[in-house]
Amino acid sequence: MGVYPAALENLIRQLARLPGIGEKTAERLALHLLRAPAEQSQALAAGIARMKEAIRLCSRCGGFSDQSLCRICANPGREPRLLCVVEQPADMVAIEKSGSFSGTYHILHGTLSPMDGIGPDQIRFKELVARVQEERVAEVILATGTSLEGEATALYIGEQLKALGARVTRIASGVPVGGDLKYIDQVTIKRAMETRHAC
Amino acid sequence: MGVYPAALENLIRQLARLPGIGEKTAERLALHLLRAPAEQSQALAAGIARMKEAIRLCSRCGGFSDQSLCRICANPGREPRLLCVVEQPADMVAIEKSGSFSGTYHILHGTLSPMDGIGPDQIRFKELVARVQEERVAEVILATGTSLEGEATALYIGEQLKALGARVTRIASGVPVGGDLKYIDQVTIKRAMETRHAC
Repeated sequence: MGVYPAALENLIRQLARLPGIGEKTAERLALHLLRAPAEQSQALAAGIARMKEAIRLCSRCGGFSDQSLCRICANPGREPRLLCVVEQPADMVAIEKSGSFSGTYHILHGTLSPMDGIGPDQIRFKELVARVQEERVAEVILATGTSLEGEATALYIGEQLKALGARVTRIASGVPVGGDLKYIDQVTIKRAMETRHAC
Repeated sequence: MGVYPAALENLIRQLARLPGIGEKTAERLALHLLRAPAEQSQALAAGIARMKEAIRLCSRCGGFSDQSLCRICANPGREPRLLCVVEQPADMVAIEKSGSFSGTYHILHGTLSPMDGIGPDQIRFKELVARVQEERVAEVILATGTSLEGEATALYIGEQLKALGARVTRIASGVPVGGDLKYIDQVTIKRAMETRHAC
């Protein structure tokens, strides 16, 4: 509308590009930042800029990291022969917060979705096969979501890894069908981890 | 929780300090920024930093501006003898968007609130009196909110300005009582402007 000065209108426009942030909310946030102490808005601006530079993918599991190996892969206290496969880094974080898993992770960064042209080569499946073959993995726990794509992905990966002789399990469907793993409460995730069953 | 790398945890913490943004939403926004093109997150970071430097208060009306005079005060097409008094810059923007006012504004940056120690000297009341005396104002429209504080502020300012011989009006209470002016629909604001009455 051009009622606010250009610098403020610009920030409102930038904030409104974020998911779930509408024009009214963007305006409210921008006005808050304008009134807030300079150190708060500076910290936010610097945080956004630094994060983008600092974060890369862990060379082993594919999770977010600021080192070559993420904190979990680099932790000698974690059981490396227990491998939990998830769709996204946020899913890994949800499982970590439930405190029900002491192994390591493998993050696919997606699910199979033939309709969208996403096959095994578009997710980190080759890397998973390599790890199973090289790292003498005792058990692969498939913790992809219970959506249609998540189930299909688990089915496909399960078949492929069992053909390689791996022991493959699937987290129990204590997780509500159709749910998004990262929004599930920690107790449900814990139960699903504990009651996982052989594929 | 320290599951994400430090730079990401830091950004989540910074985002969660914003009003109405909880931990889950902050995580979602941070992950979105991580995946978004670098130009988007850079534009947001730069927008926050620049806004804080660029914006000051208009020396006449007290609205946000990137010049000494804001765009409305500097516009010769606006009627300078018609003065609309609002609580906050966002209220001014709401009235502007309704398109029902062609005069200039005076922003109080607050309301009287004796309980919180906010008297006439803590809002831009002295500046308003000076403008009414110096600028030969024909009419002062009181468009503070219809909350208790907004009404009390309008009552006080109305009395004081009438004692100076000014013509003072109050926007009609088409605005729902207790409502926050900046969230009211434009038609209601328009009606309230049109049916303003003498104090």
